Amino acid sequence: MKKQLYVLQDILGTNQKIAREIKAACEDKGVLVLNLMSSPGAGKTALLEKLAERLKNRYKIAVIEGDIETERDAERIRAKGVPAWQITTGGACHLEAKMIARILPLVEADIDFLFIENVGNLVCPASYELGERIRVVLLSTPEGDDKPKKYPKAFSTADVLVLSKADLLPYLPFDLERAKKEALDLNPRLRIFVLSALTGEGLDDFIDFLVDARSALSPADA
Amino acid sequence: MKKQLYVLQDILGTNQKIAREIKAACEDKGVLVLNLMSSPGAGKTALLEKLAERLKNRYKIAVIEGDIETERDAERIRAKGVPAWQITTGGACHLEAKMIARILPLVEADIDFLFIENVGNLVCPASYELGERIRVVLLSTPEGDDKPKKYPKAFSTADVLVLSKADLLPYLPFDLERAKKEALDLNPRLRIFVLSALTGEGLDDFIDFLVDARSALSPADA
Repeated sequence: MKKQLYVLQDILGTNQKIAREIKAACEDKGVLVLNLMSSPGAGKTALLEKLAERLKNRYKIAVIEGDIETERDAERIRAKGVPAWQITTGGACHLEAKMIARILPLVEADIDFLFIENVGNLVCPASYELGERIRVVLLSTPEGDDKPKKYPKAFSTADVLVLSKADLLPYLPFDLERAKKEALDLNPRLRIFVLSALTGEGLDDFIDFLVDARSALSPADA
Repeated sequence: MKKQLYVLQDILGTNQKIAREIKAACEDKGVLVLNLMSSPGAGKTALLEKLAERLKNRYKIAVIEGDIETERDAERIRAKGVPAWQITTGGACHLEAKMIARILPLVEADIDFLFIENVGNLVCPASYELGERIRVVLLSTPEGDDKPKKYPKAFSTADVLVLSKADLLPYLPFDLERAKKEALDLNPRLRIFVLSALTGEGLDDFIDFLVDARSALSPADA
């Protein structure tokens, strides 16, 4: 029987306590956990589809999808040959660590990357750690370069900013330098990637970053 | 001294009770109140800028802007010569009727249109009536045609769907008929407008609709 990822879930525990248990359990096993947050339609699933295509032959990956309703995003990931679990919150506007803890026993322990796609919402998810080592916020170029200071928590708590849908830049009044500066003013330690899941532009750099971050974990069982 | 819009605010009242008081007070005065909801960056403010330009010479309009942080959106509206009040929620992910009730005494009573731009969030604002007669949900084409069923409450509770940023359609994998059908499946009474605030495409029809809806009110003091 395959080993699974277990977390002792204290149902009375706070979100942060459960998140820390998830983080410790995953990192002990060498699993890099990422939490992807953004507005609806910023391209989280499209990015994960591309990452699945590019990573799945070299690494074992798994995806947890969060949505208010529908299994659509998990189905898109499974269509790429990658295991995916859909959490439908039935109205709740963000994922919580206890929801992740319920899925973890279903996830094989020897994976390299666990991507968690949060509910599309640039506000509420920022308040809930899910056990991630790396928090990624996506800002799609059509949303506008003025968003970081209007939705500061998502940007100030993230480790990585992905400026997505870069292929649309020629058609948009989007100032790339303004967006970067505004995000860095809020959070000087942000790593920023400009990419397009549609054309593949910028993906290599982001994948190199993910692979390095995975390597920096020292799994107890490696 | 000019007459102002007052609502007797019961601070212990529920949101819906306050919202109904706002609705009654405004409609008695012939003020058409609209609540605009969408994801961040779907073009609510850009649409209001265009409406301000096109309506302000024929009608009196006012705008209440909701954001987590910054006065930016109100400043954009004021730059069009239209009075605007900014509510910054300081973290809260939606507007509530009591916030509107606090602003109303500052708004002249003889206006024709009061536009309320909600916090950019396709989830939480749908649960809070603000006193609007018409609830407008915007879905921008870059967000994708699969959003209505993933964020059903915003679409099922709206009166009007604006498919915004239509100018980007040639560059996007967005199926207009799929988006319309999915929204209408959730809510058959939706009025749907396809428009671009950038090019002005589709704006005339939307403005005609607004003017008709305003005329359908029978103000007590007309």
